[in-house]
Formats: sequence, C-alpha cells, structure tokens
Amino acid sequence: MIAVLKHGTTPQQVNHLVNWLKQMNLDVHLSEGTQVTVLGLIGDTSRVDMDLLKSLEIVETVKRVSEPFKQANRKFHPLDSVIACGDVPIGGGHFAMIAGPCSVESEEQIIEVAQAVKASGANILRGGAFKPRTSPYAFQGMKGEGIRLLLKAKEATKMPIVTEIMNISTLDLFADVDVIQVGARNMQNFDLLKELGKTNKPILLKRGLANTLQELLMSAEYIMSEGNENVILCERGIRTFETATRNTLDLSAVSVLHNLSHLPVVVDPSHATGKASLVAPMAYAAAAANADGIMIEVHNNPSCALCDGPQSLTPAQFDDLNRRVRKVREAIL
Amino acid sequence: MIAVLKHGTTPQQVNHLVNWLKQMNLDVHLSEGTQVTVLGLIGDTSRVDMDLLKSLEIVETVKRVSEPFKQANRKFHPLDSVIACGDVPIGGGHFAMIAGPCSVESEEQIIEVAQAVKASGANILRGGAFKPRTSPYAFQGMKGEGIRLLLKAKEATKMPIVTEIMNISTLDLFADVDVIQVGARNMQNFDLLKELGKTNKPILLKRGLANTLQELLMSAEYIMSEGNENVILCERGIRTFETATRNTLDLSAVSVLHNLSHLPVVVDPSHATGKASLVAPMAYAAAAANADGIMIEVHNNPSCALCDGPQSLTPAQFDDLNRRVRKVREAIL
Amino acid sequence: MIAVLKHGTTPQQVNHLVNWLKQMNLDVHLSEGTQVTVLGLIGDTSRVDMDLLKSLEIVETVKRVSEPFKQANRKFHPLDSVIACGDVPIGGGHFAMIAGPCSVESEEQIIEVAQAVKASGANILRGGAFKPRTSPYAFQGMKGEGIRLLLKAKEATKMPIVTEIMNISTLDLFADVDVIQVGARNMQNFDLLKELGKTNKPILLKRGLANTLQELLMSAEYIMSEGNENVILCERGIRTFETATRNTLDLSAVSVLHNLSHLPVVVDPSHATGKASLVAPMAYAAAAANADGIMIEVHNNPSCALCDGPQSLTPAQFDDLNRRVRKVREAIL
Amino acid sequence: MIAVLKHGTTPQQVNHLVNWLKQMNLDVHLSEGTQVTVLGLIGDTSRVDMDLLKSLEIVETVKRVSEPFKQANRKFHPLDSVIACGDVPIGGGHFAMIAGPCSVESEEQIIEVAQAVKASGANILRGGAFKPRTSPYAFQGMKGEGIRLLLKAKEATKMPIVTEIMNISTLDLFADVDVIQVGARNMQNFDLLKELGKTNKPILLKRGLANTLQELLMSAEYIMSEGNENVILCERGIRTFETATRNTLDLSAVSVLHNLSHLPVVVDPSHATGKASLVAPMAYAAAAANADGIMIEVHNNPSCALCDGPQSLTPAQFDDLNRRVRKVREAIL
Repeated sequence: MIAVLKHGTTPQQVNHLVNWLKQMNLDVHLSEGTQVTVLGLIGDTSRVDMDLLKSLEIVETVKRVSEPFKQANRKFHPLDSVIACGDVPIGGGHFAMIAGPCSVESEEQIIEVAQAVKASGANILRGGAFKPRTSPYAFQGMKGEGIRLLLKAKEATKMPIVTEIMNISTLDLFADVDVIQVGARNMQNFDLLKELGKTNKPILLKRGLANTLQELLMSAEYIMSEGNENVILCERGIRTFETATRNTLDLSAVSVLHNLSHLPVVVDPSHATGKASLVAPMAYAAAAANADGIMIEVHNNPSCALCDGPQSLTPAQFDDLNRRVRKVREAIL
Repeated sequence: MIAVLKHGTTPQQVNHLVNWLKQMNLDVHLSEGTQVTVLGLIGDTSRVDMDLLKSLEIVETVKRVSEPFKQANRKFHPLDSVIACGDVPIGGGHFAMIAGPCSVESEEQIIEVAQAVKASGANILRGGAFKPRTSPYAFQGMKGEGIRLLLKAKEATKMPIVTEIMNISTLDLFADVDVIQVGARNMQNFDLLKELGKTNKPILLKRGLANTLQELLMSAEYIMSEGNENVILCERGIRTFETATRNTLDLSAVSVLHNLSHLPVVVDPSHATGKASLVAPMAYAAAAANADGIMIEVHNNPSCALCDGPQSLTPAQFDDLNRRVRKVREAIL
Repeated sequence: MIAVLKHGTTPQQVNHLVNWLKQMNLDVHLSEGTQVTVLGLIGDTSRVDMDLLKSLEIVETVKRVSEPFKQANRKFHPLDSVIACGDVPIGGGHFAMIAGPCSVESEEQIIEVAQAVKASGANILRGGAFKPRTSPYAFQGMKGEGIRLLLKAKEATKMPIVTEIMNISTLDLFADVDVIQVGARNMQNFDLLKELGKTNKPILLKRGLANTLQELLMSAEYIMSEGNENVILCERGIRTFETATRNTLDLSAVSVLHNLSHLPVVVDPSHATGKASLVAPMAYAAAAANADGIMIEVHNNPSCALCDGPQSLTPAQFDDLNRRVRKVREAIL
Repeated sequence: MIAVLKHGTTPQQVNHLVNWLKQMNLDVHLSEGTQVTVLGLIGDTSRVDMDLLKSLEIVETVKRVSEPFKQANRKFHPLDSVIACGDVPIGGGHFAMIAGPCSVESEEQIIEVAQAVKASGANILRGGAFKPRTSPYAFQGMKGEGIRLLLKAKEATKMPIVTEIMNISTLDLFADVDVIQVGARNMQNFDLLKELGKTNKPILLKRGLANTLQELLMSAEYIMSEGNENVILCERGIRTFETATRNTLDLSAVSVLHNLSHLPVVVDPSHATGKASLVAPMAYAAAAANADGIMIEVHNNPSCALCDGPQSLTPAQFDDLNRRVRKVREAIL
C-alpha cells in the first residue's frame, strides 16, 4: 500500500503517522521528494482501513498495490480453479449448464423438468426450495420438502443439484445438496458466508444488485478465509436506471472477474432480464464472453400458459438454447 | 388490482385467465369495452405475483390499486405511529437525536462520548458492537463485550441505546438493548426480519444501498406481519454513479415514506456522505425535510487526529449541529 | 392510450376530463364498471403528456397501448431496415465491422490503420475529427482537417467512413462523409437531431450514458420525423455504480431494441469498457447477442506503447477479433 | 500530478516515459524508493490525459494533486463569487428565489404568475420558451414569442428573467434576457458552452442526469475558459434506480460544490422530484443545505385542475414556501 502525503506536511505529522502505522505491524518505507512524500507500507495491509487513511488531513491519496482479497486472487493462484459439483467440474474449461424450474412445486414437476433438461444437455439441476420474496405474503417456497423432492430428482437423473440457502439454521437440510446457492440479497450477509466457509460444499455466490465486483470477491474471501475454497461466482444483473429489463446484465463482469480471480464465473440470464425472449440471446452472449457456466430457468407446463414464469423457457426452447451455446463456445476457442 | 387485457384477446383466453384468478380466491369483475377489456380483481391481491400476471401474452398492463404493504400503510393507519425507544418516543412530532461512536472501543470511550452527546442534546445513544465489514480481515467489532459496554453507558447516562444485529443467533445478547438496528446489507435478510418480528423491540430498519422505498416498506411489513409494529425506517444513502460522496443521500425519501406510511423516518447523514464536512449540512437538510430523527457519529479523541473516522464529528461539532437542527425544526413548523 | 380513473370519481369530474381530452382531437371511449371507470383514448395520442395525465387527482393509472415512437416502431414496419452506408448495408442480416483509430492524428496514421483494418475484414472506417472532451484544455480533435484526412483514407481504401458531428454549423464539412455519428452526450441535443433529420445521410445515434432505450428510440424519432429514415442505433455502455469498467455495456439492449424497432443496432465495446483486454470478449458477446455491427478502436503504433489509448487494439488483435466474431455469428444462426 | 510506477519497471521504461512527459512541457521530478518510483509532474497538467497515463503497463496509479478545473476552483479564488443577474446578486450570502411557470403560455399567464411570485418574495422570474422534450411530437415551447412575453413580464414586474437556450443559433433572441439557462441534457454540449463563454451573460448551468459534480465543474470551466465567469451551478436531481421520484435530488451536491468551487449553487426541487407534494420539503432542505438559490415552478390556473403540471405549486403554496425557506435560512446562520 502506498500513501502519498500532501505538500506542506510537517516532519512531526509524518512521524506521528509513521508511528501509528508501525503499531499495526507494518514496515514503513519513507521516500521524500521535493514535491511529495510517499510512504510505502509493507506487511499485512489487508487490515488497514483505506477510507480512514484517506480521510486524514495530511494524506493526499492512498493506493493498494495489492488487492484486498487474497485467497480469491489470481496473483497467488494463477491457474483457474476447477470446482467439483458432485461429479461435474466447473471452471478451467469445464462448462456447467445449470437448468431447472424457478421453484420446486411437486415431485412430478421437478422430476419431469430434470429429465427434460438432462436430455437436452444440462449437467446440473437447479430448483428453489427456500425463496427470498420481497413480500411476506408471497409464496416462500416448499422449504425442507422442496429439498427432499430435489433429492428425488437427483436420484432419478444422477444430476447434482444446486439450491438456495437463506438461513444458516437450515444447513442440516442441505447435507445431500451438491452446491449451495447464496442469493443476491445475502451476498453481504457476512455471518452466513462465514458459516458456509466452515463447510466443504461448493458455494454458488450471486452478485448483489448494487455490489461492485471487488465486493463480490471480498464476499468470496469471507467464505474462503474460513477454509472453504469451493466458490463459484455468479453474475445475475445489477440495478440501474433502465426499466426495459428487470436488471442490467453486466457481461463484462465475466472477464473482469477472470482477470482478478481464479474462481469460475457463471451467468444467470433468466433473473437478470426477467423476460423469456431475452434469455437465449443473453445466454449466447454469456458463452461468448467466456463464462464457465449458465443458469437457465425451465418450466414444464406447456399446456398452461398462464402458470409460466415470465422468464422461464420451455424444454424445447432450452434444447435449442443449449445447442447454440455449445456452438458459440466452440467459436471463441 | 386492475388488469387491462390486450386488444384481440379471445373469449376463451379471458375465461382461462378469469378461472385461474378465481382459484386464488379473488373476485373478478369484467368490464368489456370496444377497445379494451379490463379485469378488476377484488380480495387479497397481496398474494398475486404482478410480474407473472404482467408477463402473460394477453395482458397489456397490471396496476395495483392498493399498495402491497398493509400494516405499514398510512391508508389503514392515518395517524403517525409513535415508537417508544425506552422512554424516548419517536414519530408524531417527537424527534430523536441519536448520537455516538461508529464502534464501541472501550468502556472509557463509550461512556465519555455518551455523556458528551447527552449534554449536547442527544436522547438516544448509538454504538456498533457487531460491525458488518466488506473485508473478513477488518475489525468486526467488540461483539458481546461491546453490548456490555453500551449497557454500562446506558446505566451511566440513562439514555436508551441502539445497536446493530447481524445474526439472529445473537438475539439473547440484545435483551436489554432498547432499539435493534438492521443494517443496509440485511434489509432483505427476510429470515432475520421475521425473527425480529417475533420480538417486541423497536427495530431501526436501514434502507439497502440499491433498494426502492417500496421494498423498504415491504421489509418493514415482514417485521410487522409477525406481530412487531415498532418499526423505525432509516434513509442512509443509496448507491449511484456519483463518487464525490460515499453514497447519495435521498432526502426526498422522508416525504415519500411519510406519504405512504405512518412509521417514523430517521436519517443517517454520517454513513450516507462518508465525510465529516458534509454531515452538518445534511443533518440540517434532513430536519428541514421533516425527518423524525437524525443519527450522528461522534468520537472523543480530539488529541488523536489519526484515529478519527472520516465521518465522525467531535463533541463540540455535534453540540453546534444539535442546536441548529432544533432551530431548523422550528423554522418549518 | 388507456386511463383508469379512481374509484369515487364523480360524473362531473369524468365529464370535465373527457371534454378536455376531446379538445385535443381525441375520441374518448368510456367503459364504466362497478369498480373502475376506464377511458380509451383514440387518435393521435403521441401529443398527450402522460405525466400530466397521470398527475391528475382522479386518475389511477395511464397506459400507452401504442409506444410513443412511430417511425422507429417495428409494429408499423415489421421488416428489418437495411441502411446503406456508402455501398455497405447494415441491418437485416448485413453485418458492419466498423474499425479505426479513436482520433485522426495524421494522414499516415489514418491511411495505415484504414488499410490494416480493411485487410482484416472491416468494412467501414471510423475516426474522430471533432472530439467531445470533458475538459476544455484537452485535445479537441483535428476538426475539418481530420475529416479531410479521413476522406483521403476513404479514397485509398474505398471504405465508407463514419465520424462524429458536434455542432450543426459544421455540417458542410460532412458532405462526403458516409455516416454521421451523434455522440452519447448529444443524444438529446434535439435541435441537432432535427437538423440531421433534414439530411439524407445515415446517422449513427449513440445511446446517452443515462438514457433509457425508449428515450433512444424517441431521439431516433426526432431524426426520422424530419424525413431521414437512415438511423443506426448504437449501444455503448451506461453509467452505473460499478467502477471496474468505464461504463456498463448493456447487451440486452440489442434484443430489446430489435423487439421494439426495425432499425439496426451496433455495439461499441471499446468506449463501453475503456480497457483493451475487455474489448474482444465484449465484441464476441455483442455478436452472440445478434448485433448488426460492432465498432472497434484500432491504433497503429506498435513501437510506442506510451501512445496507445487504453481501449485500442493493435491491428493483429483486431484481425483475431474479426475472425472469431464471424464464427460467433455463424454459431447463432 | 503524481504517477506511481509499478515495482519492476526498468530504467529504460522510466526514461521513455519521462521523455514523453517532458515533450508535453512538463517538468518531471523523479523520486525512487526501494518499493516504488514516483514521478511528480509539474506544469500545466490539465492537458494530460489521465486515463491514457493510467492505462500504461508500467503505471500503478495516477493522482491529480490539483483538480482539472482552474477558473471554477475555489483554491484559486477563495471568496464566493457573487453573480449579478440584472440587479439581483446570487452567491456570497445573496439568495435567489427563482419562480415562474414551466412554460410561457400567454401574455396574461406569464404576467399574472410574475406578479404573484414577486408579491410572495421571488426575485427572479423563470419561464420556458424553448422546451427540450423527449418526444418530437410534444409541445416544444413558444420559442421567440415566449421570450417576447417574458420580456413583457420583466417590464411589468422589474424582475430579471431566466430562460433556457437549446441552440446557439437563437442567441440573438436572448439579448435582453438576464440569465441564460443551459438544461441538463445540454450540460456536455461543449460547443454551446464555448459560445456562451464568449458572451457576458450569467449562465445557469444545470447538472446532467448522469453527470458527476466534477464533470459539472468541467462544463463550467468550458464557459469560463472562454472569458465568461458568470456561471451559476444548478442541482436538479440525478437518475438512479428509484422510481418513486422522477429523479433523485442530490442535496449533498451543494456542500461538495461549495467546497470545490466559488460559484453559487441553486437547487431545482420541482424538476428533481416531479411531484408538487415534494417540492416544499425539498426546498426547505435545499435552504438548510445552504443553497444560494432555489427554483420553483408556479402556475396560475387554480380553477383548472386538469391543466396543472404535476410539479407546479399554486401562488398560495409558493407564498407559504417562500416564508419558510427564509426562516430555514436564518436557522442555519
């Protein structure tokens, strides 16, 4: 970390600051020019509060030379991480096609969708059991029973499953779940992240609606610093002024995250756009942007147009999508 | 709730939709014109998923006539709610001046700041014990010990105290805390909200960085629908493209919330702006916007310029601020 | 346009409103139900101020059945528009690969880059002569001389050229320019748009940093309503809270615009991301999202690393990019 | 300007960079430590493209020690500027209450409103003659005739007038206008700014919907660098994700701009919020935030509820607002 001091700082002030920094177990290297005085801070600067340092009267600017995340950092782990989700690897060239219904609704539904998406090329099954809903009066998911049905679908199709946790007190229910999802609204639920860091399950960590990519990596760091290195990052759209789509899918996030981190990055175009007609083009775009996986909502009631979610595809649409996603991946090799 | 159907919808499609809506225990009133067909939905529409309804092929537009929140809604509770925080009321003309340090650091510190802010006119003491931090490597607060010290300061000054909860498993530690704060990052931690709804403590609910005011009211509804009506809303800045301030304080939120809800609204200018020099003008502006309270960070180390947070005021600055806030309140009467 | 009136509106109020609407040459169709009264407005509703109508005490909600843009609207022009840029068509399956330097700097530079990008598959040459710069002290472009040099490069390579106009008083200089670009900061410079609408040149209209897609189409409408139907829309990133990239490229815009309009949509990943390493993945993603063209900044000083713009590719990088973009386009057919 | 070079930069690379910088007429002061090499750039760094410098491989970080704006900068002009608008001063303790209708509609209307707002304490009259409208089909203002009517109202009330310019070709019509407004959509219409910089009229410069405060000051600099120092800055709300208000009024902008610049800052709560019920509280808040003036829309058709704009106050409401704004100003002295 480098701190540039303001022109006109007195030697006493410099001393005061240097002593304070040394109390934090940092080595301080002083470089005085005629125009500026620069402090080089050496040691574990991840504990230094940059905002506080910047706010000091005598400090012109502060710059981290090293990013504040360590275990998620590609600099210290140059090779792509490959995360085993059951027997399906993600990352380092291994592509995950994650598909399934928004919510688990019945045994018949989840098994039927699971079989359909598997037949079309999905390799991981998704389905919501605990559903975070803006309204307390809305359907909150089948909860434990939903997980039980997901496990039946897993048994029937041999696909690993991913489903969302909202509360660490339900962790026992996830014993046979292959990948635990942390939703966008819980991306900075730090206590939940720490507890998941004590498990060895792969964690699919969704980016929050107003969170920067650096904050996403810091949340991954919460999990990893507790010992669980199996983190999969997920871009699912951010909140902007545009109302034509539910959120704005930030596909540049894929490359930015790949540059900064060794963790795999998957993209969820269904939640990002909120419209079925946009899911396929954004899935192709995500594949072209070199995502390590894509999550797609698929429903199975072709006869009941009224019951379909606004962002879910039919199995036939998913089949078509999967085929072209594979071709796009080949095109960018 | 009103749904306008598209021109060209067939009678069968209308029937299909009407039957589906009736299955949700709604009365459906059909109004057919030459240009449009309008459905009036009567009953408990808070359970209807508007996004799903809007997404149907035959639906042109959907509009809630009633807001999706009930217990927080001013329509059903025209008078301002007055929330008792210990023996200090907030709302309905009762103004809360909440002050204290960002984090509790020692017994001496918290008692000294508490006595100073009380002498200057604060009526509630704030102080962080559990600190949500972006980095797992940053100081996470004194936790239980911090609450113990806050209770000592409460005893010493007879001021009620407010402090943040991050995890429902720590609820027992808050037994003697007067007001429990839910931070911006937990505004949509729905399981935490529900559990707090089962207590009878006043809850200070901070707006999330990317959350609309309607979502804030829906989160209040999560608490209230479980039986706890003691909710205080808090505007603390939203995330925008502007980088001159840490967040953008949305003061119009005060009036918008007062129009929609009977709950008191307090403003936190310290976290919103992130800069001490902006705290006073934004506190005056919040008072002028008719906020029911203001939260201010105050520190007590005038001799150690290095240790002060970028957004904390000295006791002398707070004294001045408090005096002018009172005058501004009189000016808008 | 449909206006739903509030429950409890008196017959006098309804009459008052209906008469006022009729004064605007609208036919008003009244549909009264027990719960709601609905007015269907028939005629040229594009002149009705929706915000004003919505703000009336007795109006519950207002909804346009038809979009406020007409000539840009796909409903009235179902087939894709194909815009002739010199002899290069864009849209309706015709793909434009637009490449060139950020600014024209010298005859040698622009001709060398033009020849290089043509050899690699570009079919339109870009280059800035008038440069909108945040600072009045920054280089503002070679202006008229820049256009003269672009025309030399056009002559040398037979590629049509696109360059930005900032001020209608310079229009004469653009007589031999094939496509006139309107930059993001001028997207709502309505007087400029109207004047360009009186020419017959293709206009490349960039989306403003904080403009919705509907506003982009309304700006296209300004040009088209004056008689010039040759408008090409351009997504170039919007301003959000994320600072890892200069702007957030909104690739869902391509499909949303294709759904709403018949105009071609090109994507500029260079300005959107501001980083050379992100240009290629975002170009592939744009192609996968079915963009009708891509604009890429290319420079030609491989020996002078200091002089390169942060977002410009070398000719070799562009050659590679162009090849994969073509493959991605085949993959989604 | 300070540039910190990356660890591991070779002496040749440093030389290459230093020579390049010297070609820009900068003195370069080199400060080499064991950890970092820092370049201090001395001279006119406002011409240096920071983004380009930052993008160089060998550069770790770049920091302006001086802001990129000069004439607008408080550092070089410590005292508040006082701008004479006709015979009404703004800034340095002089408060402007600017009021009038959204659009000039008739002689009777503008004179009636002008007399009413003057009687209630307004000291500058506003009224739109050229109206920037999202839709080409919407009313675009009375244009030259509107200015003629404003001048009649000026004559009748002896109040100076402010009205918006959209196109430099209409400048002659503004000969007797006291203050020329540049609207939010033209904040970065740099050619318009430069031309206005050649006049000596006070310019009311509105912040763009997606523009940072630094960009606003750079646009003021465009005007001032041409010789016109009479610039008044105006905060009028920025575009965010919140839809409860038309824009989000950023009142912290007042203090931030006062800290950075000597120019007066006025606030427009009418356009920011888009709702009459929010105008008064936001006007009080603006006064409490120490704005140098407030702009309020006032209409005069109390008998025609249908014709009123959603954000306009009646003269009686304005009278009340003005009285309390004055009291709030006293409260913060």
